[in-house]
Amino acid sequence: MRVRHKPWAADFIKAHPEIIIPDPEKCKGNWKELFENNNPLHIEVGSGKGQFITGMALQNPEINYLGIELFDSVIVKAAEKVMEAGSPKNVRLLLVNGAELEKYFEKNEVSRIYLNFSDPWPKTRHAKRRLTHENFLKLYEAVLVDNGEIHFKTDNRGLFEYSLVSMSHYGMKLNYVSLDLHAEMPEDNIMTEYEEKFSSKGQPIYRLEAQFQTKQS
Amino acid sequence: MRVRHKPWAADFIKAHPEIIIPDPEKCKGNWKELFENNNPLHIEVGSGKGQFITGMALQNPEINYLGIELFDSVIVKAAEKVMEAGSPKNVRLLLVNGAELEKYFEKNEVSRIYLNFSDPWPKTRHAKRRLTHENFLKLYEAVLVDNGEIHFKTDNRGLFEYSLVSMSHYGMKLNYVSLDLHAEMPEDNIMTEYEEKFSSKGQPIYRLEAQFQTKQS
Repeated sequence: MRVRHKPWAADFIKAHPEIIIPDPEKCKGNWKELFENNNPLHIEVGSGKGQFITGMALQNPEINYLGIELFDSVIVKAAEKVMEAGSPKNVRLLLVNGAELEKYFEKNEVSRIYLNFSDPWPKTRHAKRRLTHENFLKLYEAVLVDNGEIHFKTDNRGLFEYSLVSMSHYGMKLNYVSLDLHAEMPEDNIMTEYEEKFSSKGQPIYRLEAQFQTKQS
Repeated sequence: MRVRHKPWAADFIKAHPEIIIPDPEKCKGNWKELFENNNPLHIEVGSGKGQFITGMALQNPEINYLGIELFDSVIVKAAEKVMEAGSPKNVRLLLVNGAELEKYFEKNEVSRIYLNFSDPWPKTRHAKRRLTHENFLKLYEAVLVDNGEIHFKTDNRGLFEYSLVSMSHYGMKLNYVSLDLHAEMPEDNIMTEYEEKFSSKGQPIYRLEAQFQTKQS
């Protein structure tokens, strides 16, 4: 995703610490304190303009949500979305790099990870940048609970094919696969902005749920 | 697949033992003798009218092929296809039930299994009849070499989704997945009759290669 820098973004972010968490590395191991409850923590890596994470937070008040986004001008849009929804207490945003999750979360601190419409990085030489590359799967496993799940959706066929193979080779189990999510249209599906755009053109949306397997010791 | 019985089929089958193997249970453990070489044996479960298995045999003379088909009137069409191709010595047909593979093959006797456009059995109560149900995977594993592969293609979205999950839960690794085979159009792809029909309508063809994992002992 290419995003132009917007100078007003830094000021907005500083003005809204109740939504965009400042110094998130200080929360490592202590997210329950920030949310003031013991509910499970679900994170979205690459939360974009925030429609998914906000919708999920409204739909599931018993879950805590964190949207992780790298780009300041994009996270501002997500924060505005959270505010429009009445700033539900169970959703916050982090302006950090998804490749550094271990800076912000202890092992077992995250109960589920969502990846939605991640950058496909179609060139083979960029495969390591795909959010379902083995290196990222290791990172997710390092912060997830045992047998934690990744829920992933995309309109990009190549990325979905790659992810099925990558997750399988990592030893993850596929618990659910849809090759045309909107043909099934589950009632609880929260759409992202991309998803609305692509599905309205009739393109299939792919979705999977994959689970890490406890290592035999 | 529903097929009407054709009375002439039995006579045709008896008249062509060089293609449709009589008493195939006698070949168990001895397929190398029948083919008169030590080449790997690949089988197709549900070979239908035989276009795939015949095309593969012509393309790969260093592999032995067996097409397995349950219906007599269908296997006759496949035998005719083999004869039209000049009856290559590396392809034969078996009129048997794919659910009884162990009657005809020893462990390690089969190097690869092909499943093409298998009956989707869409109703949940018929899941056990799907050729990628756990019970069939067990059967394939019992006759395949260690780390043997299943190569599967279909136009049926529901069956493909089911198969990805079923194979993953069985502990198989996905080595290859295509969600639109004809968009890639590999040069060595041999089309089945169904495949020609469906892909010409613009429907995607799904394909995977999955590998059994050697059990830790």
